[in-house]
Amino acid sequence: MTIEASKATPPPPSGARFVELIGDRLECMEEIFGRSLSSDVPFIEEAGKYIFQGGGKRMRPALVLLSATMLEHDGDEEITYAAVVELIHSATLVHDDIIDHATLRRSKPTVNRIWGNSRTVLLGDWLYTTAMNMALSHGNLDVVRRLCEATLDMTEGELLALDRLGAIDLSREEYFSIIDRKTAGLFAAAASLPALMVPRRPDAVEALAAYGRALGTCFQLVDDLLDFTARERELGKPVLSDLKEGKLTLPLLLALPRIDDARRGWIASVLEDGAFSRVEPDRILELVAAEGTLEETRELARGYADEAQRQLAFFPPSEARDALELAPDFVLHRRH
Amino acid sequence: MTIEASKATPPPPSGARFVELIGDRLECMEEIFGRSLSSDVPFIEEAGKYIFQGGGKRMRPALVLLSATMLEHDGDEEITYAAVVELIHSATLVHDDIIDHATLRRSKPTVNRIWGNSRTVLLGDWLYTTAMNMALSHGNLDVVRRLCEATLDMTEGELLALDRLGAIDLSREEYFSIIDRKTAGLFAAAASLPALMVPRRPDAVEALAAYGRALGTCFQLVDDLLDFTARERELGKPVLSDLKEGKLTLPLLLALPRIDDARRGWIASVLEDGAFSRVEPDRILELVAAEGTLEETRELARGYADEAQRQLAFFPPSEARDALELAPDFVLHRRH
Repeated sequence: MTIEASKATPPPPSGARFVELIGDRLECMEEIFGRSLSSDVPFIEEAGKYIFQGGGKRMRPALVLLSATMLEHDGDEEITYAAVVELIHSATLVHDDIIDHATLRRSKPTVNRIWGNSRTVLLGDWLYTTAMNMALSHGNLDVVRRLCEATLDMTEGELLALDRLGAIDLSREEYFSIIDRKTAGLFAAAASLPALMVPRRPDAVEALAAYGRALGTCFQLVDDLLDFTARERELGKPVLSDLKEGKLTLPLLLALPRIDDARRGWIASVLEDGAFSRVEPDRILELVAAEGTLEETRELARGYADEAQRQLAFFPPSEARDALELAPDFVLHRRH
Repeated sequence: MTIEASKATPPPPSGARFVELIGDRLECMEEIFGRSLSSDVPFIEEAGKYIFQGGGKRMRPALVLLSATMLEHDGDEEITYAAVVELIHSATLVHDDIIDHATLRRSKPTVNRIWGNSRTVLLGDWLYTTAMNMALSHGNLDVVRRLCEATLDMTEGELLALDRLGAIDLSREEYFSIIDRKTAGLFAAAASLPALMVPRRPDAVEALAAYGRALGTCFQLVDDLLDFTARERELGKPVLSDLKEGKLTLPLLLALPRIDDARRGWIASVLEDGAFSRVEPDRILELVAAEGTLEETRELARGYADEAQRQLAFFPPSEARDALELAPDFVLHRRH
């Protein structure tokens, strides 16, 4: 759910209710996030506004705030940390778009497309460092360490993914190890950060991290699914972008051992060419539909959603727990 | 001075004596720095070794260690921080080489040349985050904040420089503002960090930061001079690289208002083409020699060296203070 819902956006799915409880605090987060994207360097000011107005689902900040509410926190720290997590997420996006040579994100030209790779490298650096600087402002070293570790994990996940880019023999284990580091780690950090705040709740860290990790894995599986099932207008970028960029995701990975050499050749050709020069995108979409691997991937995503929800049993019932329980449904039903 | 002096390296200038006092501690720093460049991601491990073996003058770590010694510190923290500062410096170098499309650094192919831009973007991110993570290990928030601020300053300096890349009308004020943020800031942070350690020496922060800032400015002026005066073998990259990359540095900036339109056209042509396609490099070298702006730049560098040395009067005489006093001489006389 975008904070400033545009008229072009379809109505949010029912799962979006999960942020209702923290609507006001998400707005505060949004303000802090917007203000943090400011500098006396004109380019940062301009690109910062562009990123801010580009919106986003603000999933990770919502996790920080809901988790804090569940732990009965009601301070400024979690709002700062929520903005910090969104800053870190934004930094990874601008650098990833350089790496993927992406030209569209959320229906708008990417930062690298508009301002070029050089400025975008530096903007990402600036976002990461601004995030760390803001995280330091409340003097809680455990929180900053956790954020550093999550950032390292994401970078390493991206590098592992690059090593296997274009590889048709990517294993299921490799795929899950990559999405665990690349995506699930920051969700885990976001959800568990409030347990590191004062008063500390060391007992809650593990359950919240496991909740976030399962939710993040579910989120990435759905992301990978949407690359096959979404309409371009909703997705904000062309469908089958992943395959074109050399990324083999679960629906195809599951289909590969079951299909004949000719069809396997189709997939190999896109990975090799970085384009649909020897096969129509529709053939690939028919292939995964025929093999039923979209439904299998969705089942796996559902399994991670259930796993996330199970972790919440550790906490006594509360409105915030109910909201966190709704988050996996939101993730499963999102259309972009 | 490189730690592992290779046989091809000319004997260090007399100023190199400035690190003699902290030789053992620099070796410890080197070990920690080397160990920090390690990961279970094969590429990081490989590129980390490459960066480590690529050497470097280790100027910034030396400043941390000498400054700590002068303040009568003798602990592990300053060794960690010295390695952290070198990690941050390494991160800026790998990202800067992407931005400058550089292919050679210290006579070896750049990281981006060997492994490509995508991996190099992520390696830089990893180095920055590893640096912050290490800096957190001693639990001193003031130090980490100072490092964050210096990093932000460097990134902003690079962005300002990019905004004026290729501009023949760069002003002297702009030039100095860029080198202040891009280079002098990290020298200032390195020199003043030990005053933020326990027992704190808030009275000493300002003098040490001013020392580092003046030394860093001197360092950058000499760097800019070497691009005109060094031999390629010593510099480890082609001479006049700066101009070719669109960077107008002080020797040319001072010459511009004094030369005729034809000569000004030579400089404009290199900035425009990114190559010496319309003028020989030797014409540019003769031009700055004739105008005497190399000597003027060196005079200015000497002024900053004097300024750095003056700041040390704040501290009582000691061997470490003597060594810090030698650093500007080392910087002024370095040949690469």
